[in-house]
Amino acid sequence: MAPRKEVFEGVEWRIRVAADGSSEALVPATGLARKAWLGLKGLISGFALKVRMFVKKAWDVGTNDPRKVIHCIKVGLALAIVSVFYFMRPLYDGVGGNAMWAVMTVVVVFEPTVGATLYKCFNRVLGTFLAGFLAVGVHWVASQSGERVEPFVVGASVFLLASAATFSRLIPSVKSRFDYGALIFMLTFSFVAVSGYRVDKLFELAHHRISTIIIGSSLCILVIMLVCPIWSGQELHSLIVRNMDKLADSLDGCVTQYFYQSGEGTNSKEEATDNKLQGYKCVLSSKASEESMANFGSWEPSHGQFNFRHPWKQYLKIGASMRSCAYCIEALNSCIKSENQAAKLIKQHLGSGCLKVSSSSSNVIRELAETVKTMKKKSSTTDLLAEDMKSAVQGLQNDLKTIPHLLNPSAIPGNKTLETACSEATTPTVTLMELVPVVTLASILIEISGRIEALVDAVEELAKLADFGINDDKSKHSKMTDKTVSDAKKQTDGTMKALQRV
Amino acid sequence: MAPRKEVFEGVEWRIRVAADGSSEALVPATGLARKAWLGLKGLISGFALKVRMFVKKAWDVGTNDPRKVIHCIKVGLALAIVSVFYFMRPLYDGVGGNAMWAVMTVVVVFEPTVGATLYKCFNRVLGTFLAGFLAVGVHWVASQSGERVEPFVVGASVFLLASAATFSRLIPSVKSRFDYGALIFMLTFSFVAVSGYRVDKLFELAHHRISTIIIGSSLCILVIMLVCPIWSGQELHSLIVRNMDKLADSLDGCVTQYFYQSGEGTNSKEEATDNKLQGYKCVLSSKASEESMANFGSWEPSHGQFNFRHPWKQYLKIGASMRSCAYCIEALNSCIKSENQAAKLIKQHLGSGCLKVSSSSSNVIRELAETVKTMKKKSSTTDLLAEDMKSAVQGLQNDLKTIPHLLNPSAIPGNKTLETACSEATTPTVTLMELVPVVTLASILIEISGRIEALVDAVEELAKLADFGINDDKSKHSKMTDKTVSDAKKQTDGTMKALQRV
Repeated sequence: MAPRKEVFEGVEWRIRVAADGSSEALVPATGLARKAWLGLKGLISGFALKVRMFVKKAWDVGTNDPRKVIHCIKVGLALAIVSVFYFMRPLYDGVGGNAMWAVMTVVVVFEPTVGATLYKCFNRVLGTFLAGFLAVGVHWVASQSGERVEPFVVGASVFLLASAATFSRLIPSVKSRFDYGALIFMLTFSFVAVSGYRVDKLFELAHHRISTIIIGSSLCILVIMLVCPIWSGQELHSLIVRNMDKLADSLDGCVTQYFYQSGEGTNSKEEATDNKLQGYKCVLSSKASEESMANFGSWEPSHGQFNFRHPWKQYLKIGASMRSCAYCIEALNSCIKSENQAAKLIKQHLGSGCLKVSSSSSNVIRELAETVKTMKKKSSTTDLLAEDMKSAVQGLQNDLKTIPHLLNPSAIPGNKTLETACSEATTPTVTLMELVPVVTLASILIEISGRIEALVDAVEELAKLADFGINDDKSKHSKMTDKTVSDAKKQTDGTMKALQRV
Repeated sequence: MAPRKEVFEGVEWRIRVAADGSSEALVPATGLARKAWLGLKGLISGFALKVRMFVKKAWDVGTNDPRKVIHCIKVGLALAIVSVFYFMRPLYDGVGGNAMWAVMTVVVVFEPTVGATLYKCFNRVLGTFLAGFLAVGVHWVASQSGERVEPFVVGASVFLLASAATFSRLIPSVKSRFDYGALIFMLTFSFVAVSGYRVDKLFELAHHRISTIIIGSSLCILVIMLVCPIWSGQELHSLIVRNMDKLADSLDGCVTQYFYQSGEGTNSKEEATDNKLQGYKCVLSSKASEESMANFGSWEPSHGQFNFRHPWKQYLKIGASMRSCAYCIEALNSCIKSENQAAKLIKQHLGSGCLKVSSSSSNVIRELAETVKTMKKKSSTTDLLAEDMKSAVQGLQNDLKTIPHLLNPSAIPGNKTLETACSEATTPTVTLMELVPVVTLASILIEISGRIEALVDAVEELAKLADFGINDDKSKHSKMTDKTVSDAKKQTDGTMKALQRV
C-alpha cells in the first residue's frame, strides 16, 4: 500500500500535461526545501514499511509458537526476581556487594529449554569452582615468589591455562558436554588470579563469586522448571514423531501425485498438497537440531514419560535412518519431475503396484510414529504392516517381471524380423525410454522399503532400550491392531480405486 | 593390555584345582585389603587407559589441524597482554579499577576466525552502548520518581526490556546478525540500571564499562588479524572447493566400482577408495558450517582475493546445489549395493555409456572446483566439458534405447508363442529384473548430470557477482583449455579401456 501511494503523490506534482499533449517536469517553487521534505518523507515511509514488515514477522514468530513468548516472559521474570538482591539491603550485604554476578548469571544461563539451562548452570558452577580453587592456589604461589616475579608467574599461568582450556574446547567429546564450562573456567581463572594482584581479600572474592553464581543458577533452574517448562527431550521426541508423519505424507503424496497428475481440485488444495510433498525436506535439515536436543536432553531429570537415562542417542539413530529414507524420496521426486515422460500404458501397469508399496510403506512409518508417540509396543501391528509392505514389494517386483511383453522391439533398428513376430503378438507396445522413469521410480520405492525396514529395527531398538510398555488391555490391543491394519488396507484400496477411475 | 593382565592375576589366586579335578574358590589370606588393592589397581589402570585415549585424541586434534594449536596460543597471548592492565598502575587507575571488563571481553569474544571475532566485538560494543545509554536514562527517570517507587520502576524496566531483547533473539533475521548483541544488551542494561540503585557515580560506571570493552575488543581484533589470521570467508571458499572435489571423486568412484567390482588391488588401496567413495557424505553434512561461515564471512574486511562485499550468500547456493547432487549419489550408492544383481551382458552394454557420463560429469565438477579455486573465468573449458557431458548423456540414452533386443520375453508366463519366436531371433537374453538396477543407475546418472548443469549456473552466477578475472595470457589460456579437455578425455578413455580388459 505505502509505496504505491508514494509513487502516486510523486507523479501528481512532478508532471504537468501541456495543452499539446506533451508533458514536462515541474520546477517546484519551493525548490530544495520541498525536495528535501519529499526525500525525507520517502525515507520515513520506507523505514515505516520496514518496521511494519519486521513487526509482522515478529508477530508471526510469536503466534506460530506462543511458548516463545512465554520464554521471554520467564526471562524477564527471573531477572526481575534476581534484581531484588539489589533492592534488599540484607541480601545485598550478604554477598559483599557482588550481587551483580547473580544478575549476570541469570542473563547468560537462561535458555529456552530445561536441558540447555541445566547444562549451562552445571557448567558455570563447575567451571567457577575449579577455576576459583586453582586461581587461589596460583595466587598463593605467586605471592610467595616476591613482588617483582609475581606478575610474571600470574601472567604465565593465565597464558598456559587459557591456552589449555581453549584447546580442550576444540576436542569434540569435551565440546559437546563442557564447552561452556571451559569458557567459564577461563573467565573465572583470569578474573580471580589477576585480581589477586590488586584485591586483598581474594578468598572472599572467590567465595562471593561462587555463592552468587549458585544463587543465580538456582533461581534459573526454579523458574525454568516451574513456569511452563519446555523439555529438550520432549521436544526431540515430538520432532521425531512429527518428522515420521511428514516422511509418510511425502512418500504417499509423491507417488500418488505421479500416477494421478491430472491436477484436479482447487488451487488452495494443491498448495496444501505441495506443502505435504515437501515435508521430507524437514527431515533432511533437522540433523543439527536433533543433535543439540539429544545432548541437552541427557542433562534433564526424569520428566513426563521419560526417565533420567532415557536413550536419547537412539533417537539420533532413528533420525539418521529417516534421513536415509528422505534422500531416496528426494531422488523419487526427481523421477517425478523428469522431462522424460512415461507411457500411460506402463503407468497403468505399474501404478497399482507402486501405490501399494508407497501406501504400505507410509503405513509402516505412521505406525512407527504412533509407537514412538504413545511409547507402547504394538509389535504385532507393526509386524503385520511390515509383512504387508514386503508382500507389496514382492507384487511390484512381479509386475516388473511382466513388463517385457509391453515393449516395442521395433525401436531397434535392424531387427525387423523380430518386430513382425512380436508386434502381432503384443499390442499395444511402448519404447524402453518411456519405461525408464517408472522403472526407476519402482526400484527407488523398493529401496525405500528396504530402508524403512532399517527404521523399524531402529525403533524396535528404542522400544527395548527405553523399555516401552505393552498395551495392558489385551483384547483392546488386538482389536486396535486389527482396526489399524484394516484401516490401512482400506486406505490403500481407496487409492487404488481412485486411480482406476483416473 | 591392562584389562587382560588384571583378569589373569585374578584367576591365578582365586581358583585352586584340587587333586580330583574339581575347582574351588580360594579364600585369600590377606582378605579385604588385597581385594581393595586389586580393585584400586583396576580403577587406576582403567583411568590411565582413559587418560591415554583422551591424550591421543587431543594429540590427533592438534596434529590434524595445527592452526587449532595456534588459536589456543593466540587466546593465551591476548589474555596475557590484557592482564598488563592489572599490573600497570596508570592503566589500572585510568579505567577506575574496572580493568576486569577488558579481561572478560577478551575471554568471551575471542573466536577461531576473524569474522566470528569481529561479529562478537561489534555486537558487544553496540549492545553495551545502547544498553548503557538506555539504562542511564531509566535510572534518571527512576530517581525522579521517589525512593519508594524507584525499585519498581527499575524492576519493571528490566522485566520489559529483558523480555523484548529475548524475543528479538528468537526472530531469525535478528538472530543471525545480532544474537550476541541482544544478550549483551540485556547484560549491560540490567547491570547498569540495577546498579544505579546502589552506585552513586552511575555515569562513570557506564563510561568505564564501555571503554574497557572497547579496549578488550580492539586488542582481540589486533591479535586475531595480525597473528596467523584464519578468515571465515577463506575457509568457506576452501570448503566449497574441497567438497566439489570430493563430490567428483565419489561420483567417479561409485560408478567405476560398480562396473569393475572384481575387487583387484590390495586392502589398503581399497580402504583409500572407500574413503573417496564416502566423500559425498561430507557434502551432505556441511550445511550448518557453510551457513555460519557465510554469516561470519560477511563481517570480514577485504582480505586476500576477497573484497568486503564478496557474495558469500552465493556460496550457500552452490552448496545447496552440490547437496542436491549428493542426494542423488546417495541413491546411486543404494543401487550399487542392491541385492538385485544386474546381468553381465547388460552391464557390458551400458557400462561404457554410464562411465562416460560419470567421468564427464565429474570432470565438469572438477573444472568448476578449479574455477572457484583460482577465481578465474575459464568459461570455454567449462562449456566444452559441459558439452562433453551432454553428449555422453545423449549416448547413454541411445544405449538405453537399444536394450530391448537383449530382453528375454520367456520370463512372461503364458506367452509361449512369442517366446519361441523371440528366443530364436535374440541370443543371448536377460530378464527385466536383471536390467532394473542398471537402468535405475543410468537414469539417476542422467538426473545427476541435470543437477550438475544447475551447479554450473550457480558457479557462473558467483563468477559474475564476484567479478572473477579472466586468464590474461590468452595463448596460455587456450593451451590450458585444450590440455584440460584432452586430459579429461584421456582419463575417460583410460577408464573405458580398463573396463574392457575386465
